[in-house]
Parts: sequence; structure tokens; C-alpha cells
Amino acid sequence: MAKILITSGPTRQYLDPVRYISNASSGRMGAALAETALRLGHEVVIVTGPVPTTYPSAAQVVPVVTTDEMLAASQSWFARCDGAIGAAAPCDYMPRIVETEKIAKTGAPLTLQLIETPDVVATLGQAKRDDQWVVGFALETNDRRFRATVKLEKKHCDMIISNGPTAIDSDVNDVELLDITGEVVARVKGTKQEVADVLIAEIDRRLIRKTIASGK
Amino acid sequence: MAKILITSGPTRQYLDPVRYISNASSGRMGAALAETALRLGHEVVIVTGPVPTTYPSAAQVVPVVTTDEMLAASQSWFARCDGAIGAAAPCDYMPRIVETEKIAKTGAPLTLQLIETPDVVATLGQAKRDDQWVVGFALETNDRRFRATVKLEKKHCDMIISNGPTAIDSDVNDVELLDITGEVVARVKGTKQEVADVLIAEIDRRLIRKTIASGK
Repeated sequence: MAKILITSGPTRQYLDPVRYISNASSGRMGAALAETALRLGHEVVIVTGPVPTTYPSAAQVVPVVTTDEMLAASQSWFARCDGAIGAAAPCDYMPRIVETEKIAKTGAPLTLQLIETPDVVATLGQAKRDDQWVVGFALETNDRRFRATVKLEKKHCDMIISNGPTAIDSDVNDVELLDITGEVVARVKGTKQEVADVLIAEIDRRLIRKTIASGK
Repeated sequence: MAKILITSGPTRQYLDPVRYISNASSGRMGAALAETALRLGHEVVIVTGPVPTTYPSAAQVVPVVTTDEMLAASQSWFARCDGAIGAAAPCDYMPRIVETEKIAKTGAPLTLQLIETPDVVATLGQAKRDDQWVVGFALETNDRRFRATVKLEKKHCDMIISNGPTAIDSDVNDVELLDITGEVVARVKGTKQEVADVLIAEIDRRLIRKTIASGK
């Protein structure tokens, strides 16, 4: 059996003490993956942004708010895990300057300078040991498969799951699973639980058992 | 008895199909106000942004996402109500341009031009008939009381409730209630339900009964 880190939900990047940039990620895909992995006897740690979703009680849940916090918690837990699934949608831009007081409206436009946050999955992918694996998600509105293969390589993933924006805050999903060579090895459409069952079965067969078999 | 419009929760302003600006408003203050108002026999309509909170089943709930949608729904319902309580935290900035495709990361900074959204409470305050009333909330990090009195006047409110950022996504609140002259007539600290009980009692005594007594 394996110990699996799952990142889940959105993160938030505050502009001031009240306003932030985020997305509608609900944590449901992460919860469904955890549910299946636990059922198969794996151990699960979930590093999650703020979500309304309830995670399985058998999972260890580590709550975070910002992308930096998600990265730090994920790095720390990944060292003690066999693999990681990046189901979160971390906010990938943050304001260059965070105001300490609420920005007051003046009637004039406001120019916001955003910089990229660190990439959680890419950082784990780069740091992974030979006996560890990393599975990413790519959420794209256009050129989905092409962009997924680019992310697969750039983030050093062993597999990547390509899905679209309708997956966000939804009960259902429609995904393609690409193996390490970029080949589409599975297509799944259904509830997030049905999708999770197929994804965990593929991860189990292609990554977990392989690692165990090779004695790494 | 009165028919009361309550705005509640945050709104979202999307930058692209995935990312948005918002805040952590939970809708709990709106739900607590609705609960008390219904218990006293008033009718309640709640125009709410996306929240995890469950509203009282006796309230009519109108879900919205953006500030424009909150404004349109509030204007439409306000015409059929005796008064409005602006407990929502509408997102008050929106991107000048909303991208139709997910913005791809390039490694370079991103400059975002934001413009102000319409002010929901100020629009209702300006439009109110002589027999209607509007109560606003002012959420400030600094100069709280001064800024609340400015908002009271600018938004044509009959009362304003001043609170701080710790109120957001919390079970408790700590507020000052300012009457139409800007005088602090009540201070309440407690659970949001306890605060709601005092606020609705004051609104009942100072605005609802007054309107009924004057035969407006």
C-alpha cells in the first residue's frame, strides 16, 4: 500500500485584508480521489485550500490559504509520501504588493500588478526521488491535449489528467489521462467519484505497483 | 409586518473563465438577519452571491454571481419590498477586460486594469421611495466610524452598521449601529445571531414601525 499526498481545492491570494483572487474549485475531485484511495487501503494526506467540501474522516487534512502555504505544506508532506496527485487549483497569480489596509474606492480605475506564484506540482515533480511519482491535472479552455502534454513534461509528471473549466465546482467531470509519454491511455466521463475510481486504478496499476515491483 | 430585502454573501468578478476576484464573505450575517426577521413575522427575500451557508427555508432566495447581477436582482425585488439590508460584500472592482480563454502563464508579470462595479446599496438608497428604508454595512480596516458616517450619507442609508474584517467568514461579530444622523445608537458584540437580534429589533423600532405609524 502507498501513502498518497493529494492537493485539493483553490488557494487565495489577497490584494488587501478583504479582497482576493481565487477560483471556484470545490475540492470535490480531491475528496473523491481520497475516498477511492482510502477504500483500496492506501494512506491519504490532503493539503487543501478553503473549501465547503467535507473530506473522508480517515484522511489527514492539512488546511492552507495561499499558494505559498500549499507549496510549503506539500513539500513537507511529500517527503514522507510515495506519490502526489495535484488535484488542487492553486491561484497562480498574486499581487506584487499586498495592501495592509482595505483599498478605498476613489472612483478611478485601479491598476494591479500580478506576478506568478510558485508552481506546486512542478516543484514536487522536480524534487521527486526515483521511488516517488507525481500526477498532475491540467485545466485548460483551449488546445487542451497539447497544453496538457506541455505541462506533463514541464512539471516532471508521471501522468497528467486533462480536463476543462466545466469540471470546476461540478459533480461531474470529463477527463483524458495521459501517461508519461503523452499518450492518452484512458478517457473517463462521469461523476467525480466514477472518474476518481478509474484514475486511482490507473495510478495503482501504472505507478504504485510498478514502484513496489521494481523494489525502489 | 414588513417585506425585507437582504443582500448577502460575496460576489465574484471573473478575469477569465477560471480566475476571479472575490472575498470570504460567508452569508452567515445575512442568514442570521433573515432568521430573526422571519421569527418576528416579516417576509424576507435574500439576494445572495455564492456561499456555502444554508438560508432559512421560509426565505425566498435569489442566487447571483456578479455585482451587476446582484444589483439587477436587488433593484427588481426592492421595488416590492418595504426596506433593504445590505449585508452582502459585493466585489467592488471588476477587470476592465474579461478574457474569454484562460490566461496562460508566461513567466512575466501580468497587469490587470480594474474598474469599480456599481454600488448596490448606494443605488437602492438613491432610488428609495419615502416609505422605504435602506440599512447598509460598512466594513473597514481603519477609521471605521468616520468612514461609516461617510458611507451612510453617500449611500443615502437610514442606518449603517460598522464592522471590521474579522467579521468575514466568522461566527461572531462586533458592530456599531449608526442612525441617520451618524450617532452611534447601539454597540453589539456576540454571535452573528445575537448581533442580528439586536439589529433587527432596532430596525423594527426605528424604521419599520415609524414607517407604519406615519402611514407612509
